[in-house]
Amino acid sequence: MSMKIVFLLYDGMTALDAIGPHEVLSRIPKAQIQRVARVPGPIQTCSGLQLIADLSLSEISQADILLIPGAGNATTLGQYPDILDWIRVIHATTLWTTSICTGSLILGAAGLLQGLRATSHWAVLDRLRTWGAEPMHSRIVESGKIMTSAGVSAGIDMALALAAKISGQSVAETIQLGIEYDPEPPFDAGSPDKADPVIVEALRKRLMNVFEK
Amino acid sequence: MSMKIVFLLYDGMTALDAIGPHEVLSRIPKAQIQRVARVPGPIQTCSGLQLIADLSLSEISQADILLIPGAGNATTLGQYPDILDWIRVIHATTLWTTSICTGSLILGAAGLLQGLRATSHWAVLDRLRTWGAEPMHSRIVESGKIMTSAGVSAGIDMALALAAKISGQSVAETIQLGIEYDPEPPFDAGSPDKADPVIVEALRKRLMNVFEK
Repeated sequence: MSMKIVFLLYDGMTALDAIGPHEVLSRIPKAQIQRVARVPGPIQTCSGLQLIADLSLSEISQADILLIPGAGNATTLGQYPDILDWIRVIHATTLWTTSICTGSLILGAAGLLQGLRATSHWAVLDRLRTWGAEPMHSRIVESGKIMTSAGVSAGIDMALALAAKISGQSVAETIQLGIEYDPEPPFDAGSPDKADPVIVEALRKRLMNVFEK
Repeated sequence: MSMKIVFLLYDGMTALDAIGPHEVLSRIPKAQIQRVARVPGPIQTCSGLQLIADLSLSEISQADILLIPGAGNATTLGQYPDILDWIRVIHATTLWTTSICTGSLILGAAGLLQGLRATSHWAVLDRLRTWGAEPMHSRIVESGKIMTSAGVSAGIDMALALAAKISGQSVAETIQLGIEYDPEPPFDAGSPDKADPVIVEALRKRLMNVFEK
């Protein structure tokens, strides 16, 4: 039995949101990964890099794991009812429905977070309330079969946790060793609790401008 | 003055090796990123994902920062003297020449590591001796203007260190906060010193088969 893992890609998305988990989950036994988009072909990420989506939404009707990456423009996906419909349809078939960073705002817009605890990028965490979710300042939040993760790099931690749930801890540890994920950030500024408050407020302002667009 | 940052892409490469640093370095002020390959267009990474290379080697004659990602087949790049020539030419123009994971074996094959300390993915660290380098079991190794990093995920740490050198610590900390890089790996198995020895030896054997191909 293969494990069907589906990534939603879209223009403006943050590349690392998807590629962190993609690198991890591609290494579980019998992983069958599919990268889908509204329109298949080159997808422009926010850092300029283009990724290729192989399939269109209509070519996918089921997933064991669904992953929704984030973006500065994540909430604009709410303008595409076909994407939100597709997410709801796939969600009904999954073992795990997951998001990275502001991808949780897309799950929220699709109506999947009503009454549930969830996380997101720290700068937009409160917006989860718009969709009836209870924001949690945690790296990973598990609510039934929905798993949300914090900003960008948190997707790597989430994917390792998922790998353990699906294939066992020994497989997850093998993957962690394979990608030599023994982090040594040169600074301790990765969370609003830890970074210099001046940096936090300056970045929050800048990100608000991005997210308001 | 822009900061010209050049990523070498090639079929078989590990996507996260490049995308981790790409996400970080795209956020430094005036970053101008170029993604180049022997043949521009879709590049098949080892996890199935395709990335797009925008330019061919001959279209790039200078870089401020050169980044060489790794791959299971990294050493096969030695079969392309034009790639190694290009690396040497660009290296002569850089502020920083860098590698992620087995990308250091490519720098070695290009003759750039002779007599220098360097690192690589833990499973192939000793192979650096083939190219006259002194292997160091460190996450990041700086030797003059050459910076090498350990396996796959180490590129994120290296890129933050580079961002600080180029744009100052406050910029690097802002980027770290922006990608919420406050790692919480669910397991402590990211290094051969920390993982279960049974897992280390099994993975070492499996990787040796990949690298011997």
